[in-house]
Amino acid sequence: MAVLDNIGYRALTEESACEYVKSLKLFLPDEKMTVEEIGDGNLNYVYRITSNHKSVIIKQALPYAKVVGESWPLTLKRAKLEAEVLKKHGEFVPHLLPAVLASDEELALTVMEDLSHLTIVRDGLIQGDHYPNLSAHIGEYLAKTLFSTSDFALHPFEKKKLVAKFSNPELCKITEDLVFTDPFFDVETNDFEAELAEVVQQLWTNDKLKLEVAKIKYAFLTEAESLLHGDLHTGSIFASKSETKVIDPEFGFYGPIGFDVGQYIAHLIFQVLVRNENDRIVILQQIEEVWDVFSQYFSEAWQNSVVNPFTKVPGALESFLAKVFKDAIGVVGCELIRRTIGLSHVKDLDGIEDSSIRLYVKKATIQLGSSLIINRKNIVTISQLLKELEAYTS
Amino acid sequence: MAVLDNIGYRALTEESACEYVKSLKLFLPDEKMTVEEIGDGNLNYVYRITSNHKSVIIKQALPYAKVVGESWPLTLKRAKLEAEVLKKHGEFVPHLLPAVLASDEELALTVMEDLSHLTIVRDGLIQGDHYPNLSAHIGEYLAKTLFSTSDFALHPFEKKKLVAKFSNPELCKITEDLVFTDPFFDVETNDFEAELAEVVQQLWTNDKLKLEVAKIKYAFLTEAESLLHGDLHTGSIFASKSETKVIDPEFGFYGPIGFDVGQYIAHLIFQVLVRNENDRIVILQQIEEVWDVFSQYFSEAWQNSVVNPFTKVPGALESFLAKVFKDAIGVVGCELIRRTIGLSHVKDLDGIEDSSIRLYVKKATIQLGSSLIINRKNIVTISQLLKELEAYTS
Repeated sequence: MAVLDNIGYRALTEESACEYVKSLKLFLPDEKMTVEEIGDGNLNYVYRITSNHKSVIIKQALPYAKVVGESWPLTLKRAKLEAEVLKKHGEFVPHLLPAVLASDEELALTVMEDLSHLTIVRDGLIQGDHYPNLSAHIGEYLAKTLFSTSDFALHPFEKKKLVAKFSNPELCKITEDLVFTDPFFDVETNDFEAELAEVVQQLWTNDKLKLEVAKIKYAFLTEAESLLHGDLHTGSIFASKSETKVIDPEFGFYGPIGFDVGQYIAHLIFQVLVRNENDRIVILQQIEEVWDVFSQYFSEAWQNSVVNPFTKVPGALESFLAKVFKDAIGVVGCELIRRTIGLSHVKDLDGIEDSSIRLYVKKATIQLGSSLIINRKNIVTISQLLKELEAYTS
Repeated sequence: MAVLDNIGYRALTEESACEYVKSLKLFLPDEKMTVEEIGDGNLNYVYRITSNHKSVIIKQALPYAKVVGESWPLTLKRAKLEAEVLKKHGEFVPHLLPAVLASDEELALTVMEDLSHLTIVRDGLIQGDHYPNLSAHIGEYLAKTLFSTSDFALHPFEKKKLVAKFSNPELCKITEDLVFTDPFFDVETNDFEAELAEVVQQLWTNDKLKLEVAKIKYAFLTEAESLLHGDLHTGSIFASKSETKVIDPEFGFYGPIGFDVGQYIAHLIFQVLVRNENDRIVILQQIEEVWDVFSQYFSEAWQNSVVNPFTKVPGALESFLAKVFKDAIGVVGCELIRRTIGLSHVKDLDGIEDSSIRLYVKKATIQLGSSLIINRKNIVTISQLLKELEAYTS
């Protein structure tokens, strides 16, 4: 099915990847180039092509995903969508994204700036690296991309055009299933250690929890607020001490703002839960900072908004930020749970070698997730969130 | 602009309207036909074409609207959209809609079943007619069209396809402005009697109210729940004692379910406010009935849903209906206000000849509308709504 989307599609090899970038004149005709495949081969081929004066990345979508053991057909259109999200978000935060050098819908590929001098944030955080600008940058990225594509910034004709353009049903379905449905029911995509069975069973029979998850999922299905990244975990962010670059927005679509905000916070929380007391502080500060910077940039943009006269009503900004925060806390809860017992895990947890510690942390993750989902109406500030975390780290 | 949408567009005359239906073979070649233009000429031409054995309606969109004094360019695509909504809704409630006999995108017209044996409900109610089946039919119409096009009934791919198909920015903008924005600000589209200036001024300076309207408008802008009618007032419904037919869904789009429910209830409330105590009871019963029948049909469909496993979670249905009800009450409030002081009025109010009664009722309408908007979280049952109405009718 998916292959038929693009009749001219062919999977690149190292050789044809080189030929392709040559044809784009990104390198000189006689320049000596080396190429290596650096992706994990799950969803995409990723080639790095280097000469002695420059390097670029080609990311090509595969017509299937290997996430469920065998291959799963998946639209090649996601390559174009990813390139389009990068371009749209790049209008607002070019310094926080890789530059798109070329894209090819037929071949389902994007040629991008090489970011190999940076580290994937998840890996860096696991090995204890510190990124002092990370949360300030992500706060800015979130505020500017999400505000600028919302009904507070755009004429409704333009906004509705973008909603239609960024319709992304296939990738959304993955999130609808793997984040917001499967972990809460006894289905075979779930994946958890036997010792967690009792905690998981409690979760599956917790109707109060499932009622709240139903609402969070429904918001994901129906609320077309802003053009999201759609998969903003710490594996989608490259960083160094000074620089931050957000990659891989192939799950982008018009959805609830709190989704992007919540996913990022959830993945910082994994680090809070796995670190010891001293090393945890810096992550807690990052959590605080991302919300503070996000709300600061968002508020500035709001105050300059001329599209919607209701932005001038006293209390409207605070009320809207409260909605985003509540939505984000719900997403944090779902993400914590799904990355612990669902199909797709995180190295932060699975990488803990001592099994009693690992199981302890995983139980804490599930319980914290449940508590956030159920109590999100009462967790209305970032300090209340941090306080809630304390109970699961002491 | 709008004319350029359809290069083959030409406005029909009585003669060409006849020729057109002949070409469709809806009448015999030599049949004697009479034609009359029965529309108000504001947005559409409406021709009734009759022979001695049948009659049909041709509704042709005009490339402009005359609603603001002079003409306002308006997309001709709305004709196709209207025909498509009729067809989609017709899959679920064919008995409550006119049959679509033909549609022509180029000419921006739809040929439909003639409903001239029925009365426009607004006119009927104003002259005191009673439609014993009206609210049961509308409750069924609302439940079946709105449930069947929602994420509770459709696979997400199908639902998202429909969201894109029924994107309707131009007509939505009219609602965004005239229902949810202009009446709450001092702008020139508003239209109210000088004696209301003080009450209107209070409304414009009521920040608490405006904060709530901001949320209701935002839901209209962002919540793609179901394929709405989008303009379900009593002027969009034909009825007799036994039959009910919903017409004119050119404002159709994917929006919040409570919008359709609330608009219908609002227009019944105009009748509550203008009638004397004895004649009011039957309308109060209609208000109760539409919600009861809506929730009954909606609940039945929900219980049979297999798309979303969360529908089986105890409390999920009740929680969802509570959301719809709250959304509906907010829309009732906005609709009451905008039809009193905004650009587009209703005969129910403007037709009251005695000016002191008219002004009294209009003030009540504005105050009731404001109260419903502000207190909608506390009005959670239809009997609480009816109780709230009492204060404005005694």
